[in-house]
Amino acid sequence: MKSMLSVVLGLAVVGAFGAETIKLPAPDADSGVTVMQALKARHSERAFSDKDVPMDVLSGVLWAANGFNRPDKRTNATGMNKQTIMVYAIMKSGAYRYDAKENVLVKVCDADLRKAVAGAQSFAATAPVSLLITADVSDPVYKGNWSTLSHYDAGIVSGNIYLYCAANGLATVCRGTMDRDALKKALNFGDNIILHLNHPIGYPAVAISR
Amino acid sequence: MKSMLSVVLGLAVVGAFGAETIKLPAPDADSGVTVMQALKARHSERAFSDKDVPMDVLSGVLWAANGFNRPDKRTNATGMNKQTIMVYAIMKSGAYRYDAKENVLVKVCDADLRKAVAGAQSFAATAPVSLLITADVSDPVYKGNWSTLSHYDAGIVSGNIYLYCAANGLATVCRGTMDRDALKKALNFGDNIILHLNHPIGYPAVAISR
Repeated sequence: MKSMLSVVLGLAVVGAFGAETIKLPAPDADSGVTVMQALKARHSERAFSDKDVPMDVLSGVLWAANGFNRPDKRTNATGMNKQTIMVYAIMKSGAYRYDAKENVLVKVCDADLRKAVAGAQSFAATAPVSLLITADVSDPVYKGNWSTLSHYDAGIVSGNIYLYCAANGLATVCRGTMDRDALKKALNFGDNIILHLNHPIGYPAVAISR
Repeated sequence: MKSMLSVVLGLAVVGAFGAETIKLPAPDADSGVTVMQALKARHSERAFSDKDVPMDVLSGVLWAANGFNRPDKRTNATGMNKQTIMVYAIMKSGAYRYDAKENVLVKVCDADLRKAVAGAQSFAATAPVSLLITADVSDPVYKGNWSTLSHYDAGIVSGNIYLYCAANGLATVCRGTMDRDALKKALNFGDNIILHLNHPIGYPAVAISR
């Protein structure tokens, strides 16, 4: 009863801020192939079909990227367990922050920012969704010797995305290119947020035969 | 006949340099669980049993980390496909460079460098093997704007190691701590080599029940 009430109140609070949210289905725990098969299939793909990524698959790849696999810890390791990585889903309908705890997408921008994510590489804007991997480096640990700590964290997230995609027949590529100024402005990011990497994700334009 | 001869000559050349090599068995393509199950099990583990890591498992985790899954491309993505990551296996019997193309370990140091890898965190020296993730940043691309490109690459390798370990019942943790000066000296690394991360690997000290 108490937890039911919390859920209802939670939704009400979100509503009070006016944020539009998408409730994600649970990731399909039975989907995909083995780690070894995924490692065998892992590759970078830059041509996408116009087929949408279904919500359960989007939920799966977000969980693989930065979800919780324990009450307080995640599928992806972070340096000193800082967990400052934040993943955004950039889609035609807008830009959404992945709230891993609630398993929801919280809309943070109404515009289609896929061209801003694509930057000088227009192919990337043709994917139905791009995951944007960011880190909040406000914590003093990221000054000095450990200034590049969150770069490793972002790489680990990218690796998880690659293997989920390889396991589930999705096309993706890890990119450092993007229009960072446009994204920072549209997403209202301060200088404490690093825009690390992005992953356009979709189904391959041409069916892959192996 | 020609390829047989190449193999023989290849071995002879290696022999001429006096390098001791360990021929690795092929990774077991049928081992492990699904990507989703591995993501569920993924965690950092810092206590290791004294059980050795068998050669086929060592071969598997090295292949997951930085092996070839196509003639010219790898299980792990690298920025601009530079493939400058090099993984070393640090064991009691010495330090070995993973030659992914030949699937061999090439001995580069006779000493047991596990304490140097452990640095201030002595638990790490109790693992039978530590994988050391390095990058050669001689290429001009790593100057200027892309100076941290190989950090992402190292993170991707770490992510692959985590998921292979989670899929195969191995304990591991990603670490940035190590005695870099001692390792650089022992391994004869110049300033073009970045010692990014390391992963002590073994079997968990206590059997995990989930």
